[in-house]
Amino acid sequence: MLSKSQIGFIKSLHQKKYRKEHGIFIIEGIKSIAEFIPADYQIHSVYFLPQYQSLLPKLPANIKLFEVTSAELEKISTLQAPQGILALVNIPETSAIDQNTLRNNFSLVLDGVQDPGNLGTIIRTADWFGVKHVICSSNTVEVYNPKTVQATMGSLCRVKVSYHELPELLQGIDIPVFGAMLNGSSLYETKWGSEGLVVLGNEGQGVTPEIVNLISHPVTIPRVGQAESLNVAVSAAIFCADISRNLNK
Amino acid sequence: MLSKSQIGFIKSLHQKKYRKEHGIFIIEGIKSIAEFIPADYQIHSVYFLPQYQSLLPKLPANIKLFEVTSAELEKISTLQAPQGILALVNIPETSAIDQNTLRNNFSLVLDGVQDPGNLGTIIRTADWFGVKHVICSSNTVEVYNPKTVQATMGSLCRVKVSYHELPELLQGIDIPVFGAMLNGSSLYETKWGSEGLVVLGNEGQGVTPEIVNLISHPVTIPRVGQAESLNVAVSAAIFCADISRNLNK
Repeated sequence: MLSKSQIGFIKSLHQKKYRKEHGIFIIEGIKSIAEFIPADYQIHSVYFLPQYQSLLPKLPANIKLFEVTSAELEKISTLQAPQGILALVNIPETSAIDQNTLRNNFSLVLDGVQDPGNLGTIIRTADWFGVKHVICSSNTVEVYNPKTVQATMGSLCRVKVSYHELPELLQGIDIPVFGAMLNGSSLYETKWGSEGLVVLGNEGQGVTPEIVNLISHPVTIPRVGQAESLNVAVSAAIFCADISRNLNK
Repeated sequence: MLSKSQIGFIKSLHQKKYRKEHGIFIIEGIKSIAEFIPADYQIHSVYFLPQYQSLLPKLPANIKLFEVTSAELEKISTLQAPQGILALVNIPETSAIDQNTLRNNFSLVLDGVQDPGNLGTIIRTADWFGVKHVICSSNTVEVYNPKTVQATMGSLCRVKVSYHELPELLQGIDIPVFGAMLNGSSLYETKWGSEGLVVLGNEGQGVTPEIVNLISHPVTIPRVGQAESLNVAVSAAIFCADISRNLNK
């Protein structure tokens, strides 16, 4: 049984403003919760229907557990069809990213991606291909948006996502900066080397002019047909697959 | 000024049942309408805010035009932020697909894809890579769903999408049938040749067992990290890019 104020508190976390204020976000589904527990994230509390009690993974003693009714779960869930279990997770502090963190690896850089589902899919894809860092411009959609969290399918607990002023971060970095552009050289002929950043732009506008100037290697996915552009999560995936193919050759 | 019955009719087309009954679907936005007009589709009628009149492309004389108010457009639009212009389009008859249509080309085959956005993104990606046919199992989400149409970003007017009983279609076909599976051979070592079908399965369940048996070449996108799977539109894109790279070598 939850109190009115508990329900109100969890519902407030559906909104970015209150997630930021309280430093807490929501994850849902037993699979996602089982993946977050052993990860570096700190679970705040768990809310579950009685039949999920036996499915709960072993939890640290300090985590508060609440058995809830279906009606209560419907109120606090961000999903149209709640998945029987929901947890609140503390938003981790983001540590500064420097050049050394990014050495000998490939990372994705998102310049103003707006759609929560796209961001989530990009994080899931990064996780598949072993990309450890997704670096977002400060105007990229918030990663703790419930739609983003859901679209990551648990991968959020393994991929480090952080927000930065991109111009500052990219200026003077001496790692190759690749960028998904419409007028670059062919993806298929790109010499990736062993490290780099891959910049992907906003869904409608692409990469901002300020960032275009900081891209050392503009790269294009060759077009055969007539679509005007590709979805940004699709572009990210095609880049990741090509880099992965090259690294594992 | 629209009559109540016109508004009711267009609103009914937000639902699959009535799209099927009337053989009509909705497209929105000036770009999409401009792309559909010269295509093989037949436009039924166009509804636009006064300021869009001058942007209208040249239209065949038999198309009915209606100037509407913002309030009317909000009622008939399927979007949260209507784009100023909307058209009704006749659903084309789907012609039977046979082996000869599919020869000397690659086509995508979708086995139970459920998310409208995923289907739309797949069609947009197919268009980018010059894939002409997207063949859907009868239980794949309806292509005229407004979310699908929107996600195709106009590519629906160039890619042929049709629904079939997949077992019938695939049995006895003598074109290689590739399939995106978790236990196939590596994508990067696949010998694509010059023609084939690429089967992609449902978001949660993958390819159905009946269809698995009809796949001659199971193929896997090699995983480096820990995500359990890839989004189906992402997988489709990675396959398309790899095939395209091979064809244009």
